[in-house]
Amino acid sequence: MRRSEIATPALLLDIDILDRNIATMRDCAAALGVKLRPHAKAHKCVEIAQRIMAAGAIGASCATIGEAEAMASGGIGGILVTAPLASTDATQRLYRLLLRGADIAVVAEDADCVSQLSAIAVASARTLDVVVDVDVGMGRTGCLEIADAVALARQITDMPALRYAGIQAYWGNLQQVSPFSERARLIAVQADRVRSLIAALTSAGLPPAIVTGGGTGSHRIDATMGLFTEIQPGSYLFMDSCYSAISISENDNPFTPSLFVAATVVSANKPGRVVVNAGWKAFATDSGKPVAVRGVPPGTSFRFMGDEHGALDLEGGDGPVVGSTIEFLTSHCDPTVNLYSAYHVVRGDDVIDVWPIRARY
Amino acid sequence: MRRSEIATPALLLDIDILDRNIATMRDCAAALGVKLRPHAKAHKCVEIAQRIMAAGAIGASCATIGEAEAMASGGIGGILVTAPLASTDATQRLYRLLLRGADIAVVAEDADCVSQLSAIAVASARTLDVVVDVDVGMGRTGCLEIADAVALARQITDMPALRYAGIQAYWGNLQQVSPFSERARLIAVQADRVRSLIAALTSAGLPPAIVTGGGTGSHRIDATMGLFTEIQPGSYLFMDSCYSAISISENDNPFTPSLFVAATVVSANKPGRVVVNAGWKAFATDSGKPVAVRGVPPGTSFRFMGDEHGALDLEGGDGPVVGSTIEFLTSHCDPTVNLYSAYHVVRGDDVIDVWPIRARY
Repeated sequence: MRRSEIATPALLLDIDILDRNIATMRDCAAALGVKLRPHAKAHKCVEIAQRIMAAGAIGASCATIGEAEAMASGGIGGILVTAPLASTDATQRLYRLLLRGADIAVVAEDADCVSQLSAIAVASARTLDVVVDVDVGMGRTGCLEIADAVALARQITDMPALRYAGIQAYWGNLQQVSPFSERARLIAVQADRVRSLIAALTSAGLPPAIVTGGGTGSHRIDATMGLFTEIQPGSYLFMDSCYSAISISENDNPFTPSLFVAATVVSANKPGRVVVNAGWKAFATDSGKPVAVRGVPPGTSFRFMGDEHGALDLEGGDGPVVGSTIEFLTSHCDPTVNLYSAYHVVRGDDVIDVWPIRARY
Repeated sequence: MRRSEIATPALLLDIDILDRNIATMRDCAAALGVKLRPHAKAHKCVEIAQRIMAAGAIGASCATIGEAEAMASGGIGGILVTAPLASTDATQRLYRLLLRGADIAVVAEDADCVSQLSAIAVASARTLDVVVDVDVGMGRTGCLEIADAVALARQITDMPALRYAGIQAYWGNLQQVSPFSERARLIAVQADRVRSLIAALTSAGLPPAIVTGGGTGSHRIDATMGLFTEIQPGSYLFMDSCYSAISISENDNPFTPSLFVAATVVSANKPGRVVVNAGWKAFATDSGKPVAVRGVPPGTSFRFMGDEHGALDLEGGDGPVVGSTIEFLTSHCDPTVNLYSAYHVVRGDDVIDVWPIRARY
């Protein structure tokens, strides 16, 4: 099948660009001396995780128990669930993953949760690695105070069938701060807190084996601070218009967009405008509008026109004809991926594979 | 299973409220003398379409060929595809639906599309009903000028294997104009254009058998004008915070929310705030934030905290504990439904069924 013949709306993934992004991050992490546990929340795809592992990653970070199930079923090891699991459903599913032999660790932020984790680890006759989740200014999850984190690390150490594995410090709110120097300045403030926490843990006889965190926007800064043993970026695989608009290092952005949404022109009945079959159900809308990058003249802009449609306003030139395919760069890759059941994997103009997207709700 | 035990994030559908909304719309349409072809773009669910049909609807409107396939496979007749189909993929899938005997009609807006429809209808040895799509100020799809619509109706009449079935006039941009009187005033302007079009078609010997359009926000106005033979509302089934905030008739809003997103509290480590496992992947974001309606004290407000999380800021009172379930009213039902694989159908505190959501991309 040709790239232009894919049933739309569809998600296209340029495999050569994906592989370049994977290699670029691998080389960066190797040069800076940190391990890589890229985040599966971005791709939700076993085939992509296998490619990342083949390039030397130590595992897959997961945001949900469903993502962990998907990665485990695809033979991916080194799974770290990066958000606290609190429901009975989630802990029961973790228990079943342990029974099946999954290579999985989880984060925790409170004593009750740690007690539950110990109970399921005991029941499964496994030892479960638990990472202390620490809030570093994002205000989402994690221990707020150093004393709380030290107490939780001790509790994990003392509970049956648990192993205290380290700490997680993720500044998700700082990933896209611009300019780069301001991002680095804000991260340095939080890094000082992490340094104090590591010192306190070490004094308490609980030095963290793992210090995990970091994202696509912060990984260059994080990996050079001497704090993190590993990083969890995800968006670098695909990129989007928000990440493409910022500097990833002081001077450049080494990642190239590999992910596109394809749509078809369904109406061209008015000069200067065409309508495509992609709207609020085809693009995540939390971070702005998509940008048409192929099949349109320069200067074309997109407007949402409801759940299933969007309009392309043309500055001039010949507009695309009815039936033609337009490709878009998304504004936010992760929740856009979540809108599709599969990637259409392309190399140049050819569709060479279809990879399922798993663990959608 | 109890309502509070559902794996989250999840979509809950209160079946008794759904049935009341279905009955209310059926009674309204019957009283005003229009037929009902409720829009499957809202629900994407055979089980819901079957309930609507059992209550006397004439069929199901569909926005995509995938929705039409889902409805046809569930035995739903009277399918009308309400957006022009322009890709080779879509017309081939329509051809296969015709071969399978699906009871389906489509809209068209241009001559090339009509020629393609005729070709597949001939090839399938079926007669295909085609409705002329007319732009009534929304600027999305449809013939812009009366002369264009008349010419297209004549072309449909003249083409082999096609039957000219009528016209579609949908003012999607006016559905939520407030106050109600202003909505009615703006619709009256467009209704005059539809009236002129019907007169022109009738003069040309092409009186439309079907005049279809209307949505949840406009149906009371549309159905009382004596123009429409049928209406296509969808959101009335579920309601959302945007539709709940407006008047659906001059004096009242007879529909009650039946659709909720359930999430679990995963963190409560800071006074005045808890974090739930539902974010940009759990709620459509095109029309604002969800509203927590069960499991929280009054005055609680929601903030998005990334792809998988949201924060609930508490005004006071005892906050919900970790592991408890919170239910949310969504800001926009259709694209939120599209984020889930199934409805958990509830009656009071019990989960009584699970209904698949079909035709996601």
